[in-house]
Amino acid sequence: MRISAAVSGASGYAGGEVLRLLASHPDVTIGAITAHSNAGTRLGELQPHLHSLADRVLVETTVENLAGHDVVFLALPHGKSAAVAAQLPADTLVIDAGADHRLQDAAEWEKFYGSPHAGTWPYGLPELPGARARLQGAKRIAVPGCYPTSSLLALLPGFSAGALLPDDVVIVAASGTSGAGKAAKINLIGSEVMGSMSPYGVGGGHRHTPEIQQGLSEASGLDVKVSFTPTLAPMSRGILTTATAKVAPGFAAQFGGGQDLAAALRRIWVDSYADEPFIKVLPEGRWPSTKSVQASNYAALQIAYDPNVNRVVACCAIDNLTKGTAGGAVQSMNIALGLAETSGLSFQGVAP
Amino acid sequence: MRISAAVSGASGYAGGEVLRLLASHPDVTIGAITAHSNAGTRLGELQPHLHSLADRVLVETTVENLAGHDVVFLALPHGKSAAVAAQLPADTLVIDAGADHRLQDAAEWEKFYGSPHAGTWPYGLPELPGARARLQGAKRIAVPGCYPTSSLLALLPGFSAGALLPDDVVIVAASGTSGAGKAAKINLIGSEVMGSMSPYGVGGGHRHTPEIQQGLSEASGLDVKVSFTPTLAPMSRGILTTATAKVAPGFAAQFGGGQDLAAALRRIWVDSYADEPFIKVLPEGRWPSTKSVQASNYAALQIAYDPNVNRVVACCAIDNLTKGTAGGAVQSMNIALGLAETSGLSFQGVAP
Amino acid sequence: MRISAAVSGASGYAGGEVLRLLASHPDVTIGAITAHSNAGTRLGELQPHLHSLADRVLVETTVENLAGHDVVFLALPHGKSAAVAAQLPADTLVIDAGADHRLQDAAEWEKFYGSPHAGTWPYGLPELPGARARLQGAKRIAVPGCYPTSSLLALLPGFSAGALLPDDVVIVAASGTSGAGKAAKINLIGSEVMGSMSPYGVGGGHRHTPEIQQGLSEASGLDVKVSFTPTLAPMSRGILTTATAKVAPGFAAQFGGGQDLAAALRRIWVDSYADEPFIKVLPEGRWPSTKSVQASNYAALQIAYDPNVNRVVACCAIDNLTKGTAGGAVQSMNIALGLAETSGLSFQGVAP
Amino acid sequence: MRISAAVSGASGYAGGEVLRLLASHPDVTIGAITAHSNAGTRLGELQPHLHSLADRVLVETTVENLAGHDVVFLALPHGKSAAVAAQLPADTLVIDAGADHRLQDAAEWEKFYGSPHAGTWPYGLPELPGARARLQGAKRIAVPGCYPTSSLLALLPGFSAGALLPDDVVIVAASGTSGAGKAAKINLIGSEVMGSMSPYGVGGGHRHTPEIQQGLSEASGLDVKVSFTPTLAPMSRGILTTATAKVAPGFAAQFGGGQDLAAALRRIWVDSYADEPFIKVLPEGRWPSTKSVQASNYAALQIAYDPNVNRVVACCAIDNLTKGTAGGAVQSMNIALGLAETSGLSFQGVAP
Repeated sequence: MRISAAVSGASGYAGGEVLRLLASHPDVTIGAITAHSNAGTRLGELQPHLHSLADRVLVETTVENLAGHDVVFLALPHGKSAAVAAQLPADTLVIDAGADHRLQDAAEWEKFYGSPHAGTWPYGLPELPGARARLQGAKRIAVPGCYPTSSLLALLPGFSAGALLPDDVVIVAASGTSGAGKAAKINLIGSEVMGSMSPYGVGGGHRHTPEIQQGLSEASGLDVKVSFTPTLAPMSRGILTTATAKVAPGFAAQFGGGQDLAAALRRIWVDSYADEPFIKVLPEGRWPSTKSVQASNYAALQIAYDPNVNRVVACCAIDNLTKGTAGGAVQSMNIALGLAETSGLSFQGVAP
Repeated sequence: MRISAAVSGASGYAGGEVLRLLASHPDVTIGAITAHSNAGTRLGELQPHLHSLADRVLVETTVENLAGHDVVFLALPHGKSAAVAAQLPADTLVIDAGADHRLQDAAEWEKFYGSPHAGTWPYGLPELPGARARLQGAKRIAVPGCYPTSSLLALLPGFSAGALLPDDVVIVAASGTSGAGKAAKINLIGSEVMGSMSPYGVGGGHRHTPEIQQGLSEASGLDVKVSFTPTLAPMSRGILTTATAKVAPGFAAQFGGGQDLAAALRRIWVDSYADEPFIKVLPEGRWPSTKSVQASNYAALQIAYDPNVNRVVACCAIDNLTKGTAGGAVQSMNIALGLAETSGLSFQGVAP
Repeated sequence: MRISAAVSGASGYAGGEVLRLLASHPDVTIGAITAHSNAGTRLGELQPHLHSLADRVLVETTVENLAGHDVVFLALPHGKSAAVAAQLPADTLVIDAGADHRLQDAAEWEKFYGSPHAGTWPYGLPELPGARARLQGAKRIAVPGCYPTSSLLALLPGFSAGALLPDDVVIVAASGTSGAGKAAKINLIGSEVMGSMSPYGVGGGHRHTPEIQQGLSEASGLDVKVSFTPTLAPMSRGILTTATAKVAPGFAAQFGGGQDLAAALRRIWVDSYADEPFIKVLPEGRWPSTKSVQASNYAALQIAYDPNVNRVVACCAIDNLTKGTAGGAVQSMNIALGLAETSGLSFQGVAP
Repeated sequence: MRISAAVSGASGYAGGEVLRLLASHPDVTIGAITAHSNAGTRLGELQPHLHSLADRVLVETTVENLAGHDVVFLALPHGKSAAVAAQLPADTLVIDAGADHRLQDAAEWEKFYGSPHAGTWPYGLPELPGARARLQGAKRIAVPGCYPTSSLLALLPGFSAGALLPDDVVIVAASGTSGAGKAAKINLIGSEVMGSMSPYGVGGGHRHTPEIQQGLSEASGLDVKVSFTPTLAPMSRGILTTATAKVAPGFAAQFGGGQDLAAALRRIWVDSYADEPFIKVLPEGRWPSTKSVQASNYAALQIAYDPNVNRVVACCAIDNLTKGTAGGAVQSMNIALGLAETSGLSFQGVAP
């Protein structure tokens, strides 16, 4: 079986990465490639790294152009996906790389996005407990945000196991600039970002905060509250997330603290991800770098227990555009369509 | 009065930055420039950016070469300063850019550095409450570490004011690679660090942890515990510190939460640093970048209150080599010798 | 005597660098700071690294605001300087950091800039033979372009000495992104430029080409033709120029080729720049890096003779914003006003 | 048919890139992975981006370990390949990523490398006229150097067509730091290279000079002399080569100069590479960037004719580790073994 796929938003970074992955996917044929203001342009003008697709011409993002494919990837500005999806046939697999259908709580959506809630779709993070069952055969999938992907991967094992307290989670993440999109803004130009680190959305205002809380709450059955601070790093790709949470006294009591507790905690992460094809808990003492997962669908992880403050510190590195967006989207597509989950995604990271 | 200064460790980054600042200092004449394995070499070979000193030849780091100056800067590997300082006259101002004399608790020193404690010198962070009085006329000064400088500047106002809880501080900081020194190591070569973020010393093991705890404990009178995670960022200079702590219930109760509490917290930082020449709390809504303080002695700061988790998030940007090392050292020298505190330090940041 | 200076175009990179230098200049008081669309804004919002000027508010770029100062720096889009300058008093020193008044040949101006020629002002490259005499007491000065500064510094000694052929000059230069200005363009955003090198203006079309030819022709008395290719490098600041020209047979004949010729050529550069305060011909075997001159007014140079092709290869590193723009402007101001030429400019480079 | 491949030098950048490509090659099974001082180490410790091979343990680089494979890749320090190859069976395909067997002229080898010449192997640049015939069935292949690959691709069409003069070629190239290898040297650490451009091997001394001359001479039948200047750019990967040569009067005379000549020249490049799977001459007016070919086997090219100096300027971007080393090696392997030339190499570039 060969899958036909349409990709909208093809002039942006998310759409470009979806195309990069699909172009090497053994089971997929790329159909319509669509854009808004760039319709009519050769893809080579906009995405010169996509050599094998350089002469494809972008068409307008319309229902007519997107319909008739087995799968449609939406990489649109937020607020635009619902209207398009509503007009696509119910048996077309629609994968939304945007935020519109990620949150379950309409009030949270409205608070953070300031617009009516478009509804909730199955959440495309296969590593979330129970997610694969929900994705199999799904016809609508919401791709997680890049920060939520790395934050959830960092902390899910501990919360699923009941080892962490819900009310004291602190996450600080550094993202490459592609996370801010292909946007002509002064604060994103190279002269400003090279050689510089800066925070943004500090104090709980970043839109990925409720999404992180939703995932950790779902895994733990608790009402998890997160202090989340994103920072912009002088690199094109990659997210390094440092996530820390207090160890639950009940869990700690089983191990008497110290080395035994540290080992028990680490075992939770190791065991939890043992069968995951893309999640690599590194050997003890090794810490992840974003470069080790660059342009790949892998996440690299490590945890430590700090007895001084009774906290687990989990560090997770992903590529924001691959595992954090397009790779996660393709992985979910594979599951939804009954393909091998790793199909088209088993390439290595690019380093140095 | 013209001060004569000797600089040891002149082939490294800290020594080079001390020389860069002293070369423009209106009150200082640079005397001996010393090194260990590089003795006999022209400075221009090792620090080609120090054009006006290019033809100075490095001499051996010996007591003979260092003695006879009004001030001696030590930028030596840790463990080496005490022996040199002990042989310098008691009335020579000795400023140690290394770690040897920062910690007050010998047990903490031994735990983190694995060697006997060399003693404690006045701590060269003028912004620490009470520090200026201790530095005036001092003859031995311990320059703070770069992470402690930014971490303490980030949180001191809140702890001094009794607004923060001591047992739940989380600090994640990103440093430029110069913080790791001028060392020929594979993990520091450009091919590895460009385009990559990675953590290190995770789980409480970084040597700056006890120093941060010491400063915050001193300011608050409480036993402050800190979860500290440093990360390496793809830039040469700069530290961005994201520091967060719970608001003390007693403090919060005075303001009834919400906007009033947020404003009261921000006022603490603004008022606390109002007269500090080098600490800039930015206008509300503006966040610091490391580039805005690059190559300068300024620290740029902002705070937010996150009611969702009842935490203050303080972000502080410094240049690790300037305010974080050499600038802090010169500022302390100025105070110790009765010069204007800002003498030789009032240049702007370098951007873009 | 204290000089009052107005700076226009203060929200851009050139204007910001002029302000950075003037803020530390011992003989200058900064008067009006002007801008166009950003008039009314605090400087701290636009140039957060200029800490000591952060609360200054930009005023409109009008003749009224600029008049009444001893010196006016124009950092305006090209084509805008002439009209402003025409209305400023004849005895006000006007220093144009833009291109409008650099070229002597009106036809060349019109060919490359597509607009009427505004006239020619004394050219502010003090190291050009005869330039200082023309700059002393001048009231109008055209600051050289950044690429011409580095290209002329690289080759002037050889052309002045008659050692090089005029018809076979090839120059390839790499510039940091600040050379493209503070402009919100997709091709300049960090995600695009980090990790990438690309050429532009290839084939003789870059506007700095006639300016380089003009300077080399003036120095040599010959009609020098240059193949000039600029490239964009993934760094904020700095230009590295690689300039190569054939050795004139008449010159070579004096030395019989080989080592004697190589030594004779190198001596020309060394002698030519021996008394220049800001031009550093490095010791033999050392090559310049842009970082060694970062944020300084120095140029670092080295040359080699390649007998295989009978060419001199000269490499010159400058900071495009300092020596290549604002530093060159201040140096020329110092000369024009009879100040010490190095006043306010003798700081070191910033490295690492 | 499934090919078994051994890779030596697996801890370095060239060896790592060969492994990255082979791991996704549909026709290859990776056999022995060898190293020298790192024998006994898990590959994951040294090349953490090669996730699917992380648990493979490196073995000693010995003939015993390398023998018994269909193809052996040598990524050894120069001077080491010949001895190893001599002991491998004559019917084993040995592909040397090092320099040892590239040059035909033993005197040139000895002049530039200072050691006895090991002999000449078929040169693995398929795009060189006649190369594919020599590579088919070859059992020994010398992979071109990274600078020669980009320089030859830039200029071969013009020289093959007799359109360029042999005695006035000037090439300036900028390389990412991975070209200098995974070596712990102070001048390669991130603090030194980030934000900096610098030349090296200036004046004809770089070892790739004779290799470039050899290729251009072979294509043109003339004795081509090249002025070659390499520079180090602040990026991990990529080479941007700017190559310029005078147009031959005889060729120019056919087209009367001006636009016709420019068009005729461009047509040579376009036609010459029309059927090449990996060489992309961009649409007129578009210039290549290294990022557009990052981590891919593609070369992106553009040329311009500058009538002012009668020169062609050709710019070529490649990834030094992929098309410039490992990709070129795999492409040659494919040809030698009768596989599809693009097998395992048809992935896109990685951008942004």
